[in-house]
Amino acid sequence: MILRDPVHGLIAFESDEERIIENLLETREVQRLRRIRQLGFTSLAYPGAEHTRFAHAIGTAHVMKRLIQRLRDLQGSLPPEHRICRARAKDALAAALLHDLGHGPLSHLFEDALPHSDPHEIWTERIILDPGSEVHAVLAKHDPNMPSRVAELIAGRHELPYLARAVSGTFDVDRCDYLLRDAHATGVRYGNFDLDWLHRSLRFAPFDAHAAPPALAIDGVKGVAAIESFVLARLFMFQQVYFHKATRAAEWMVRAALSLAVQLLAKGVDLPSTPPAFRSAAEGRCLSIDEYLELDDGVLTATLHAWESCDDPSLADLCQRLRSRRLFKTIEFVGEESKNPALQQHLLLQAKRATERAGLDPAVYCGLDVASDVPFNDASDNLVVVFSKGTSRRPAEVSFLLSRLDGEEMRRERLIVAPEVREQVLRMANLD
Amino acid sequence: MILRDPVHGLIAFESDEERIIENLLETREVQRLRRIRQLGFTSLAYPGAEHTRFAHAIGTAHVMKRLIQRLRDLQGSLPPEHRICRARAKDALAAALLHDLGHGPLSHLFEDALPHSDPHEIWTERIILDPGSEVHAVLAKHDPNMPSRVAELIAGRHELPYLARAVSGTFDVDRCDYLLRDAHATGVRYGNFDLDWLHRSLRFAPFDAHAAPPALAIDGVKGVAAIESFVLARLFMFQQVYFHKATRAAEWMVRAALSLAVQLLAKGVDLPSTPPAFRSAAEGRCLSIDEYLELDDGVLTATLHAWESCDDPSLADLCQRLRSRRLFKTIEFVGEESKNPALQQHLLLQAKRATERAGLDPAVYCGLDVASDVPFNDASDNLVVVFSKGTSRRPAEVSFLLSRLDGEEMRRERLIVAPEVREQVLRMANLD
Amino acid sequence: MILRDPVHGLIAFESDEERIIENLLETREVQRLRRIRQLGFTSLAYPGAEHTRFAHAIGTAHVMKRLIQRLRDLQGSLPPEHRICRARAKDALAAALLHDLGHGPLSHLFEDALPHSDPHEIWTERIILDPGSEVHAVLAKHDPNMPSRVAELIAGRHELPYLARAVSGTFDVDRCDYLLRDAHATGVRYGNFDLDWLHRSLRFAPFDAHAAPPALAIDGVKGVAAIESFVLARLFMFQQVYFHKATRAAEWMVRAALSLAVQLLAKGVDLPSTPPAFRSAAEGRCLSIDEYLELDDGVLTATLHAWESCDDPSLADLCQRLRSRRLFKTIEFVGEESKNPALQQHLLLQAKRATERAGLDPAVYCGLDVASDVPFNDASDNLVVVFSKGTSRRPAEVSFLLSRLDGEEMRRERLIVAPEVREQVLRMANLD
Amino acid sequence: MILRDPVHGLIAFESDEERIIENLLETREVQRLRRIRQLGFTSLAYPGAEHTRFAHAIGTAHVMKRLIQRLRDLQGSLPPEHRICRARAKDALAAALLHDLGHGPLSHLFEDALPHSDPHEIWTERIILDPGSEVHAVLAKHDPNMPSRVAELIAGRHELPYLARAVSGTFDVDRCDYLLRDAHATGVRYGNFDLDWLHRSLRFAPFDAHAAPPALAIDGVKGVAAIESFVLARLFMFQQVYFHKATRAAEWMVRAALSLAVQLLAKGVDLPSTPPAFRSAAEGRCLSIDEYLELDDGVLTATLHAWESCDDPSLADLCQRLRSRRLFKTIEFVGEESKNPALQQHLLLQAKRATERAGLDPAVYCGLDVASDVPFNDASDNLVVVFSKGTSRRPAEVSFLLSRLDGEEMRRERLIVAPEVREQVLRMANLD
Repeated sequence: MILRDPVHGLIAFESDEERIIENLLETREVQRLRRIRQLGFTSLAYPGAEHTRFAHAIGTAHVMKRLIQRLRDLQGSLPPEHRICRARAKDALAAALLHDLGHGPLSHLFEDALPHSDPHEIWTERIILDPGSEVHAVLAKHDPNMPSRVAELIAGRHELPYLARAVSGTFDVDRCDYLLRDAHATGVRYGNFDLDWLHRSLRFAPFDAHAAPPALAIDGVKGVAAIESFVLARLFMFQQVYFHKATRAAEWMVRAALSLAVQLLAKGVDLPSTPPAFRSAAEGRCLSIDEYLELDDGVLTATLHAWESCDDPSLADLCQRLRSRRLFKTIEFVGEESKNPALQQHLLLQAKRATERAGLDPAVYCGLDVASDVPFNDASDNLVVVFSKGTSRRPAEVSFLLSRLDGEEMRRERLIVAPEVREQVLRMANLD
Repeated sequence: MILRDPVHGLIAFESDEERIIENLLETREVQRLRRIRQLGFTSLAYPGAEHTRFAHAIGTAHVMKRLIQRLRDLQGSLPPEHRICRARAKDALAAALLHDLGHGPLSHLFEDALPHSDPHEIWTERIILDPGSEVHAVLAKHDPNMPSRVAELIAGRHELPYLARAVSGTFDVDRCDYLLRDAHATGVRYGNFDLDWLHRSLRFAPFDAHAAPPALAIDGVKGVAAIESFVLARLFMFQQVYFHKATRAAEWMVRAALSLAVQLLAKGVDLPSTPPAFRSAAEGRCLSIDEYLELDDGVLTATLHAWESCDDPSLADLCQRLRSRRLFKTIEFVGEESKNPALQQHLLLQAKRATERAGLDPAVYCGLDVASDVPFNDASDNLVVVFSKGTSRRPAEVSFLLSRLDGEEMRRERLIVAPEVREQVLRMANLD
Repeated sequence: MILRDPVHGLIAFESDEERIIENLLETREVQRLRRIRQLGFTSLAYPGAEHTRFAHAIGTAHVMKRLIQRLRDLQGSLPPEHRICRARAKDALAAALLHDLGHGPLSHLFEDALPHSDPHEIWTERIILDPGSEVHAVLAKHDPNMPSRVAELIAGRHELPYLARAVSGTFDVDRCDYLLRDAHATGVRYGNFDLDWLHRSLRFAPFDAHAAPPALAIDGVKGVAAIESFVLARLFMFQQVYFHKATRAAEWMVRAALSLAVQLLAKGVDLPSTPPAFRSAAEGRCLSIDEYLELDDGVLTATLHAWESCDDPSLADLCQRLRSRRLFKTIEFVGEESKNPALQQHLLLQAKRATERAGLDPAVYCGLDVASDVPFNDASDNLVVVFSKGTSRRPAEVSFLLSRLDGEEMRRERLIVAPEVREQVLRMANLD
Repeated sequence: MILRDPVHGLIAFESDEERIIENLLETREVQRLRRIRQLGFTSLAYPGAEHTRFAHAIGTAHVMKRLIQRLRDLQGSLPPEHRICRARAKDALAAALLHDLGHGPLSHLFEDALPHSDPHEIWTERIILDPGSEVHAVLAKHDPNMPSRVAELIAGRHELPYLARAVSGTFDVDRCDYLLRDAHATGVRYGNFDLDWLHRSLRFAPFDAHAAPPALAIDGVKGVAAIESFVLARLFMFQQVYFHKATRAAEWMVRAALSLAVQLLAKGVDLPSTPPAFRSAAEGRCLSIDEYLELDDGVLTATLHAWESCDDPSLADLCQRLRSRRLFKTIEFVGEESKNPALQQHLLLQAKRATERAGLDPAVYCGLDVASDVPFNDASDNLVVVFSKGTSRRPAEVSFLLSRLDGEEMRRERLIVAPEVREQVLRMANLD
């Protein structure tokens, strides 16, 4: 098969070992990913961000295909048992395509709001291992042990550690695709980096059969810029998109609505048109795979729409605001304020009072939102830069940029308030 | 307001006259366009094509803003009464944003399948003129006559004909945005053209106050390539996307499903979870604006999903196939076959018989799909190319390419069949 | 080696068979191509067009490398003797890099103006075959027969005709690179096409060992758009760049200056600072390879600058105008005028008279410039489109666009006049 | 006038105040910039880097035009005397176009190597103020005081300090163009930043007529990412291009060749084909403007070629190596070595001895090359970020990235050695 992709251009899966992709794409579990958007409610901030996990899954498999090509060019120096044979390539391609298979609707919000629901990684594994799933059938037809091997690989475990890290590591194929794809869809150009150059920068670290298994490293002469630009692209996407104030406000609202609904359902309140699977999850019952797979962005969006006419005024109001994009406001702490938790708690308290005075439930309409990420951590990322003579160094030793970023935390702290009380809180707080 | 757009980069509506855009964006009718995709089921062929009419509406307003800037640079030669004053600019911006306001779900399929439903143009006008709509309220607050002026402009009527053609003409702002946006989302790069250069190529034709009103023309020295590349971009998008075999097959299936549902409902069959508005439309009753606006891609997708378990086997089957993307197959007539209607009808008949033998309803599972477009028509497009000395010529006179394309019809004729009978039909037909 | 290219991104020649490229790049004959611009005086019309034949040579080798990868993916269906073995791959890569090795300075103008000079193809062959050249030494070190094989391949002769056509054919690697590179450097975006897709569209035509040798064809389902867009890109580059009026005027002036210098030198006039090789060529003597290789854009530019102070007033004036970019003007024949040779000759005569009255030599300052190209010719391009069942068709049979362009000639006819007489000629001619 | 630019797309100078650009472009002093490449010998490392200062001058004027549009949108809040009137706009456009007018050949190498030559800024001023230059004539025709005003503005002095900083400041129009243009020509994509967004991020800081003159600031909500990405783009271009080892090696060689020639000429040695202006400069005599303007990349390249056959073996050898691109090698100090000047001096001494043993002059064939830059300096860059309520902050206060980079020096230290001794030096030094 061959298809056009707005991010990677031409995508082709034509060789024998790539046929697994085409087979998997025809399963209903993979087709379901068409109905789950990659970035949930981010399209309220970036109207272009409607891209799905389905497109991302294909893109991730494509990045894996290219990575395998690169690794095969490099692996001549390895003993055969450490190379990527055909079976391993099929496993890796399948793992790349299926890595998000069990994702719930609305990005991570569904998991956050349903305390007893399993994380999506568990669902991914469960679906792959379930003999009743179409995905399982496709994998098992290629090789009865393939479902378990692919599930292991997605979980980051493989006899070739370098292959496991390609699925789940600093520059894994998932990140490589989603950064480019999110940048393309939102129009945030800072999120671009040079994938060709990144792959070309890879080398196997000098291999000693008596020591550790083979590991990938970065070429000291040509590769440092590639990892710098990858780290920067990711940093910019966090700043501009994932931590965007409208995204965070919308996510806060959805999470508040779902949590409130869970509480109401748990109390026995009847909410109209609530999907059975959601009701079960809210009540802490285990979902069957079929029930779980029924849930997607379309179903949840319809549910939020139905709740607009429910009896709980806060839930109904939240849902109405979301549909017509009347988002909560954010008030960000900058400069000294960002290092003063006491001040933040004080202002949160004042905001809660103002919210209450405005007749709104402060538990729902007000809060402190903290977003944080460490863009680069030399110790935990565990990357090695190698030079032609065989010397190894840490990225922070050879990179001007990464040494300045090493271990530094990027943090956004914001009050979330209803628009009705924003001016009042700003006046009280004397904030920007 | 200022936002990032994946197609145009930075979009800003900041001047006084542009404030109307921000006001209109907050209405629920415009927000509804977030729930209607620009290309309906095309994402089954191009996984990236998830972009919405909401993003397209903003992009169209942006193109109008830029066009107005260009026209104002040019209009010094016109008497004041023919220029774009502030009120006219506001009308034009609003018309650009609202041109698709009344669009139904699933691209054009909803209209096609519901014979008594009004075309979307009528709904657009109705919503704008309805005193109960939020859009109407915003427009009327700016100027009580604005709703009717904007509705007229969208319909292609204005005291400045050149402004009317900017909303609805060969290079109108709608086309300028959707070609670029569809190309960006699908990854079909051939659909790009140079918007800057196209606008820069515009000039006012020599104006004679006693003759016709002022009209836009193309600069003879700099502009011909711009219109050539626009026509070609559109032609390529038709060939690659709008006429794509998987797109056409999916559209055929959706149309068949909707039509079948309409027939069943009309007969009094009860289909589960059918939205009231759809039921009314199927029964030929007039929908209220509120009923109509309830319909969007999410609602129709949920409906198609619900029908998977209805009692009618054909409808249930069609809907199941759509959800898991098991599309009908197309068999295209090329070369001599494409000029032989008798042959086509003969093969259609054979295909229908094969379909019947396979136990499928030939009225639903088989048909002849014809798609056609005339990429350039010198007579009806009514464009004029002007030279510095004032001479006017027709595009086909000065363009090598356009003279070769003038009036030529691009046509795709295909048999649509169920996958089960494809091989059999091919054998019978001895087709490629 | 690995390098960054503004057109193709990352270019790497790292495998064993690609080492030939790195070796050849270090020769002085290939390094000389740094001093010859791809588009000669086109930078007077497009200031960005300063790119060299050196960069083009590398890009062409890169396109060949990618094409070889594609052909190797496809050649499984061929008997081994028809496949691209390592030696053939090296030949093909070398041929791609060296295809312009013997190019003279100032694009094609040097050859045009020096009637007895050999065409650059002859010089390319001569340099490759000359045992004294560094290029020869590199090739011969790899294999004593390699120089002659590479020279043959560049000339379009090879035991595998499909490989010969990859070096010199409708979509040859030379064209693929220069169209993209010229588009990138000039900023004429219409010149882009999708190289990935073009290569992916290639297939071997059904092969019959008893009939013809294997030939490449275009995939009927996926490939037609690729060739359409290639043909269109080339057409646009001709219209916008290669036939641009300022380019043509500058080329006319350079050709006139060189021709005049040749005449003067032939008469024994001494022109200051004329390079010995140019003098020899003007006098009809054969140049040695060393003499020829001394000539490059820098040398010719310095020569034209030196002639600004020569005694011949026309030559001095032409050179002064070129240096300060005071170009001749063009008056284009459009519409009916373009089909009326008698009218054109009549106007040329009038223009010559006006030139003479202005005190300028009409043989130098005035002329008729005709540029023409046939963008697509189904008969001579000899391309075949194949379908999955094995049917073959001609491109013009299956392509809406190509059938309209088949055999059509694109033609630009212009009077070239000095700026001093332009208005006068326009008045006489009543032209645009 | 309207032209295509590979970086900015369409460039148009069509309004009355923009006519100055067209007039200035026709002067011989501006046309001379076609013969000076922007990046000198960088094309030896990046084959695409052939772009000229002429294209850069046009691009810079275009960026100024867009900046003026933006400032005019913003200046409504300023008293009229602080706004950009038509005369000031013309001055600014002219200053942007002419800012590099006096640039010598071969980037900065000419100045470096000729100790008594004036810096190019002095030459720029001299040419603009010289009544004999065509540039002066064009400016003076518009307004007799314009030459001196434009010269002042280029030097960073203007009654509106914000306009002076637009010509020469952290984000000046020169940098904005050259970063994008160098990135485009080299293919180093990391050098891109979002110019639209940068301009859109500008605001006037709250203005108090009794305090300082109006100053530009960065919008606190929308603008921080724009300056971050600009600083990063510049940092990447330094790392990848301006500090590239092959660039630095070539520059070292050219500087060595020119310095050696200056010494030889000063001693009275006769070097063949040395341009009179170079000879004068070498002997410390003042050059006339005409003499200076004769010098360009073409002339110097021809000179270096002629010196290949001079009697001084080092000079001849250096020039031969440059022409055939046999560059000196670099050995970079990384990690701890980079902080150890004693070690560096020790290795330099050893390298000099090895060079001498190889029969090469250590003063010419060996050295320590140090390149450094401070990408961001909050104190000296003097930028202010403003928030909607009027609060001002420093960039390093609000930017995660800039606070980590503030005042940090990026530094590359390398030994430069002839290829003949590289291995030997590496062994002695035990370096990577």
